[in-house]
Amino acid sequence: MELYELTASEVRRRIQANTLTLEQYVEALLARHKDRDAVVQAWAYLNPEIVIESARRLDRLAPEERGSLHGFVIGVKDIINTKDFPTRHNSSYHAEDGPQIDASTVAILRANGALIMGKTTTAEFAAGTTGPATCNPHDPTRSPGGSSSGSGAAVADRQVPIALGSQTIGSIVRPASFNGVYGFKPTWNAISSEGQKTSSPTLDTFGFMARSVEDIQAIADVFVLRDEVPPQPVQLSRAQFAVVKSPVWSQAGPGTINAMEKAVQCLRKAGAVVEEINLPADFDDIHTHQQRILQSEAGVAFFKEYSTARDHLSSSLKTLAEKVHTCSRKEFVQALDKVASLRPKIDEIADRYTAIITPSAVDVAPIVTDKWTGNPIFNGMWTALHVPVINVPGFSGEASMPVGVSLVTSRYRDQHLLQVAAVIGTLFEEADSRLELCQ
Amino acid sequence: MELYELTASEVRRRIQANTLTLEQYVEALLARHKDRDAVVQAWAYLNPEIVIESARRLDRLAPEERGSLHGFVIGVKDIINTKDFPTRHNSSYHAEDGPQIDASTVAILRANGALIMGKTTTAEFAAGTTGPATCNPHDPTRSPGGSSSGSGAAVADRQVPIALGSQTIGSIVRPASFNGVYGFKPTWNAISSEGQKTSSPTLDTFGFMARSVEDIQAIADVFVLRDEVPPQPVQLSRAQFAVVKSPVWSQAGPGTINAMEKAVQCLRKAGAVVEEINLPADFDDIHTHQQRILQSEAGVAFFKEYSTARDHLSSSLKTLAEKVHTCSRKEFVQALDKVASLRPKIDEIADRYTAIITPSAVDVAPIVTDKWTGNPIFNGMWTALHVPVINVPGFSGEASMPVGVSLVTSRYRDQHLLQVAAVIGTLFEEADSRLELCQ
Repeated sequence: MELYELTASEVRRRIQANTLTLEQYVEALLARHKDRDAVVQAWAYLNPEIVIESARRLDRLAPEERGSLHGFVIGVKDIINTKDFPTRHNSSYHAEDGPQIDASTVAILRANGALIMGKTTTAEFAAGTTGPATCNPHDPTRSPGGSSSGSGAAVADRQVPIALGSQTIGSIVRPASFNGVYGFKPTWNAISSEGQKTSSPTLDTFGFMARSVEDIQAIADVFVLRDEVPPQPVQLSRAQFAVVKSPVWSQAGPGTINAMEKAVQCLRKAGAVVEEINLPADFDDIHTHQQRILQSEAGVAFFKEYSTARDHLSSSLKTLAEKVHTCSRKEFVQALDKVASLRPKIDEIADRYTAIITPSAVDVAPIVTDKWTGNPIFNGMWTALHVPVINVPGFSGEASMPVGVSLVTSRYRDQHLLQVAAVIGTLFEEADSRLELCQ
Repeated sequence: MELYELTASEVRRRIQANTLTLEQYVEALLARHKDRDAVVQAWAYLNPEIVIESARRLDRLAPEERGSLHGFVIGVKDIINTKDFPTRHNSSYHAEDGPQIDASTVAILRANGALIMGKTTTAEFAAGTTGPATCNPHDPTRSPGGSSSGSGAAVADRQVPIALGSQTIGSIVRPASFNGVYGFKPTWNAISSEGQKTSSPTLDTFGFMARSVEDIQAIADVFVLRDEVPPQPVQLSRAQFAVVKSPVWSQAGPGTINAMEKAVQCLRKAGAVVEEINLPADFDDIHTHQQRILQSEAGVAFFKEYSTARDHLSSSLKTLAEKVHTCSRKEFVQALDKVASLRPKIDEIADRYTAIITPSAVDVAPIVTDKWTGNPIFNGMWTALHVPVINVPGFSGEASMPVGVSLVTSRYRDQHLLQVAAVIGTLFEEADSRLELCQ
C-alpha cells in the first residue's frame, strides 16, 4: 500500500511508532496530488510549500506537545473560513477579500494537532446548482457530486484522507456515495457551523468525509460528540434494521435499487433482522417543506451578496436570493413548524432499531452535463430532521461506479451510528471482495 | 434641539433639503461623544478621523448615487464583524486578530448608504454574565443592561441615533428598557445573523435600537422585512390588546408593575380593549426549556474558544463552555421540540390581538454591582418563541429611571408590530408630557 493510501489513523500510528514523519507523508500526498489533480481538480487552493512547512513544524514538536490528531491531514471545503488560506466560495464575489480567522471547526482541529492541507472545491457558496470543474476520480466524465465536490473527490482519489464539508440538502452524503467514501453528517449543530457560509440556519450542517470509520470517530471524539448512553458494541446477529425507502423511492435508479437490495441481503446473511417500514403519512410532504425552508432562508442568507454585488452571483443564486417570497410567509412558517413536529417522531421510530437504512443518492454519479452535481432528493428530509446520517460505501452500479447506502439514527446518537457504520462498513467491504456472500 | 439629538430620519430629511451635511452632523455626534463618553463609556472602538472621512466621502456623492439610508449613522455591537474596525467581543481572545469582512447586516446597511460610526461595548462575547464598564446615561451608578450595553447607552445618550445589537435571551429589549429607547428584536432569522458571534443558533437574533419607530422602520425596510399581509394603519379605538404577565410575573418590581398598569390605562383611555390573558399551561416550563437550549448550544458555540485559548475566557464563560452536558441530551432535545411546538401556539394566540403587552424587564436598571447587567427573565421566552418584540419606552420608576413595556406579535408580522409601536409610542410620549391622561 502506498503512503498516500493510508487512513489518517494509520498515519498516526506510524508516526507514533517513529516509522514515518509527517513531512514524508505529506510529500507522498503532494506527489499524488501532482500526479492526479490536473484531471480531478479537487482543490480550490493548495500551496505545497505551506503544507511542507506545516508538516516540518509539527514534526519538530516533542511527543508530549503533539495533539491527539497529530498525523491527521485534512482538506477544508472552500466555504469554511481558514486564517491562512483564501476562502473563495467558488465565487468572484470573494476573489479579493477573505476573513483572516479560522472557522470554529478548523480552529478546533488545528488545536488538536491536525494539519490543514488546503481548500477543496465547492459549488458556488455551496448553494449554486452547478458544480466546480472537479471530476469524479473513478471516471472523469462523471460528476463528483456537490456541493462538497472537492472534499469527496480528494478523499476518494487518495489526495487527502479526510475532508470537511457541509450539508444543507445532500452536500456530504451524495458526493460520498458518488465517490465511494464515508460521508458523515452529524446531528444538526452537534458541531458548530460558525465560520462556514450560511445558506439556511435551519438546515446547514457541518460534516466530513473519510475512507474509514476509525478516522471519522477520531474527528467526532475531538468535537466531543457524545451520546446520552455510551454506545454498546454492535452485534449484527442481534441487530434490527428498518429499511425506509422514503417518499421519493420511485426516483431510485438501478444502482441504488441494487445497493439497497444487496445491503439488506448482507445484513440478513449476517444474522440481522431487517424489515421495511413506511413512515407515517405526515412525512409525505417533507420534501416540499424542506424546499420551502431552504428557499425562504437562502433568500435571507444571500441578501448580503445580492445587496452588495449581485453581478458576482450566478443566475441560479440570484434567483435564490430574489425568491425570498417564493412561498408565502405562512407556508414557510408552517414548513418550519411541521418539520419541527416530525423530529421527535423520527427519533421515536429510529430508536426502535439499530439503524435506519435508506438511499444515499438516486443512482451512481451522473455523466457531467452542464456541471450538474446530481439529485439530492433522498438526502433532504434527513437533513431537515436534524438526525445523524452516514454514507457507507461498498456497492457499485453502472460502469462500476460506486453507490453507497445511508445509515440513520435519532438525534445525538452519533457515536452509536458510527459504531454501526464500522461494523456494516467492514461487512460491505468483505461482501465486495467475496461477492458470493451477498449474491 | 441640538443636532446630535435628531433622529436618523430627521437628519436624512435635512440632508435631502440641503440644510445639513453629513460631516456637520457627525461633527456634532463626535462633540457629544467627546463631552460625554468619559462617563458613559459606550464605545469599544470609535475613531473620529475615520468617521469624518466617511462622512466627507458620502457627502461627495451626487444625490442619485446616495443610498436610501444616506444620513443614517449607526453604531455596531462589538460581536458583529466590521471590515474596517476591530471586533473584539470584550475578550482578550480577540485582542489581536479579527475578520476583515463585514457581517451580513453591516454590509447591507453600508450598501444602502449608512455610515458605521464605530463599535459599541458588549458583555464578553454577548454571553458573559458581567457587562463592560459602560454606564447608564440616565444615572452612571446604574447598569445600561446587557449584553448590548453600549448600543443601548450610546443611543440613549444621543451619541448615535441607531445601534445594532443581538439577543439570545434579553440582550436588546432589556437594555432598551433600562436606557429608555426603542429596542426591536425581529422574527428569528428574518434578518441574517451571519458574521455575528454565535451563542445559540436556535435563540440568537439580530436586532437594533433607536429613539424613534420611524428610524426602526427605515432599517426594517432595507432588510426587506415584509409581512404576509401588508400592515393596516392602527386605530387604537378599534384595537384589542392582550396583557401577558408571563409565568414569571412574581419577579416584577414596582417600576415594571407601574409601567404595565399605566400602559393599560393609557390604551383603555385611547379606546382600546385590553384584556389580561393567561397562556396555556404548557408554556409554564418555557423558561427552563430556554435555559437548557442556551446552555447546551453555548457549550457547542464556545468550544472553539475553549479548545484554543481557554485562559482568555472568564470563569463564567468557561463554565458555560464546559457545561455542555448540564442537562442530558434527552432533556435538551425535549426542550428544542417543546419550544418548537409552542411557536405555532403563540402565533395563534397573538393573531387574535393587535399585539401582546408584556414586561421588558424586572424593573428599572439596577445599581451596578459586580457589573451585573440585570435580569432578562421576562425576555427569554419570547426570544425562544421566535416572535418579534419591541420595547416601547415611556414610563419611569425608582429614581426617575426609564421603564418600557414590550409589544409582541406573531412571527413575520414585524411591520405590523412597528406600526403598532409607532402609535403606542406616540401615545406614551403624550402621556408622559400630560401625565393626567393616564392617571
